[in-house]
Amino acid sequence: MIVSEICDRLGIRYPVFQGGMAWIADADLAAAVSNAGGLGIIASGNAPVEVVLGQIRRVRTLTDQPFGVNIMLMSPFAPAIAAMVAEEKVPVLTTGAGNPAPYMKTWQEAGITVIPVVPSSGIAKLVERCGAAAVIAEGGESGGHVGDLTTMALVPQVRDAVSIPVLAAGGIGDGRGMAAAFMLGACGVQMGTRFLVAKECNVHPTYKAKILAAKDIDTMATGRRLGHPVRSLKTDFTRMFAQKESDHTVTNEALEALGGGALRLAAVEGDEHDGCFMAGQVAGLVHAEQTVAEIIDEVVGQAEALLSGASRWVA
Amino acid sequence: MIVSEICDRLGIRYPVFQGGMAWIADADLAAAVSNAGGLGIIASGNAPVEVVLGQIRRVRTLTDQPFGVNIMLMSPFAPAIAAMVAEEKVPVLTTGAGNPAPYMKTWQEAGITVIPVVPSSGIAKLVERCGAAAVIAEGGESGGHVGDLTTMALVPQVRDAVSIPVLAAGGIGDGRGMAAAFMLGACGVQMGTRFLVAKECNVHPTYKAKILAAKDIDTMATGRRLGHPVRSLKTDFTRMFAQKESDHTVTNEALEALGGGALRLAAVEGDEHDGCFMAGQVAGLVHAEQTVAEIIDEVVGQAEALLSGASRWVA
Repeated sequence: MIVSEICDRLGIRYPVFQGGMAWIADADLAAAVSNAGGLGIIASGNAPVEVVLGQIRRVRTLTDQPFGVNIMLMSPFAPAIAAMVAEEKVPVLTTGAGNPAPYMKTWQEAGITVIPVVPSSGIAKLVERCGAAAVIAEGGESGGHVGDLTTMALVPQVRDAVSIPVLAAGGIGDGRGMAAAFMLGACGVQMGTRFLVAKECNVHPTYKAKILAAKDIDTMATGRRLGHPVRSLKTDFTRMFAQKESDHTVTNEALEALGGGALRLAAVEGDEHDGCFMAGQVAGLVHAEQTVAEIIDEVVGQAEALLSGASRWVA
Repeated sequence: MIVSEICDRLGIRYPVFQGGMAWIADADLAAAVSNAGGLGIIASGNAPVEVVLGQIRRVRTLTDQPFGVNIMLMSPFAPAIAAMVAEEKVPVLTTGAGNPAPYMKTWQEAGITVIPVVPSSGIAKLVERCGAAAVIAEGGESGGHVGDLTTMALVPQVRDAVSIPVLAAGGIGDGRGMAAAFMLGACGVQMGTRFLVAKECNVHPTYKAKILAAKDIDTMATGRRLGHPVRSLKTDFTRMFAQKESDHTVTNEALEALGGGALRLAAVEGDEHDGCFMAGQVAGLVHAEQTVAEIIDEVVGQAEALLSGASRWVA
């Protein structure tokens, strides 16, 4: 067993969070992760409040273990979802793509454990002051919306900046990444790409097949010009997007419109031409569709073996 | 003591390489690192062959330990330097910014240990086939010329792709990064930014002061449009460069010309306005000017403590 303060705090068996992947991380995936001893997380993405509420009600029928909801703060529905999750008293919230400060008081009064995803030590300090229970320091090698700092550089700097527990996300696809995260000062990890190919994940089979076929160099970040880059597999869509991004005759508004709906096309329709298949740089490390329990056992088992055997490197 | 096959192979005490920083990594710094038990490396950058030869002769007067030379393969002087280092039979060569294959035979015949810096598992496989003794898998969080993949994602994927030893570079500023690198599958590390502020480093004092003052978010990569992005501290120069880079009326030729000489201005003149202060994302982890021996002792000591105590995370 891995010893971690985040397990004690949340009442979970393994310090492994499943990333809140929009259009992908639904109640089925979250329940499977929570039932396997990790922390399953329902993504709210840009979904309306009723959809997220439906997923919360569903996950409660599938597991009696703690689970989380990820609030994408740039969503137009974020304020409504923020209020709903407080009423629902979900056990854990993670937040991304924005500043959760305006909602922290409401959530704390509802007894919710809030764990923001942070891209820098400055933001980590800010959310600590607002009452965050922990932070997830996410490096830009992750899939979806990404920051500039990488996990290797970010985690120790966040660890030095705050007193609350730090989890690491981005670049973690197996037990090597998990063990490395502990060395960097994290007490747990969040994985997205690895769970995306889980048997319990309802994402379109084409999406899984593309992740399983990917090599290390097969992702790219697009949308830097818009100020919120997104990492996804290199496809016709991303190449077209990158080309438009470097074309000065294409306005930012047109570029934003171009991106809208592309993740849904990938996740729901498996549209290889117009879909945006978000994925992290560890896609090249993911070689098999497995059950969530197999993934967690394998990753945690490898990390345990590395950590318990690490003294062999010291004579 | 850290156990590492790269130490046995090269006859060095610690598996710590000093990065081949152009205009910065001279014979004085390289000798100090080699004398302290690491592998000091003279950067050739864009320097002409006589300058590099002078540094090689000088380092041999300052240390009897193994040292290396870094060949920047994009340099117009690369072919001449490649021939010269073979004649000089330097112990170790690292290569960057290109494919070393055309020179491998010459270097191997001279008995040189060649360790290319690689940005992907494909390039790692390629240089292994050409006879590389090891590879340095360098993540894009490093300073100077950077690739896309980050250390956390890159190192395990390179490790899986090749049979030769793998060192990690990028994002390593202290013993936490070094210990993490071992977990990811590396048997050693290369550090640049941390050695840049060493007392024995002859870089301009303003450069050191800027590194010491930097926070985690204070670097950025520019030059993506030119196909060879460079990470440096955010300054007037980099902001100007980024602005021109997104200005379609500025040609690539003009952009290249803009960058020329900027590193020299930073490293030699300490020019805060027109200089390009290359640095990695760990600049925010570097807090003191220390001797090379103090740096190595501190980093290796911290890594040893983490590795020997890692079993405490497993119950």
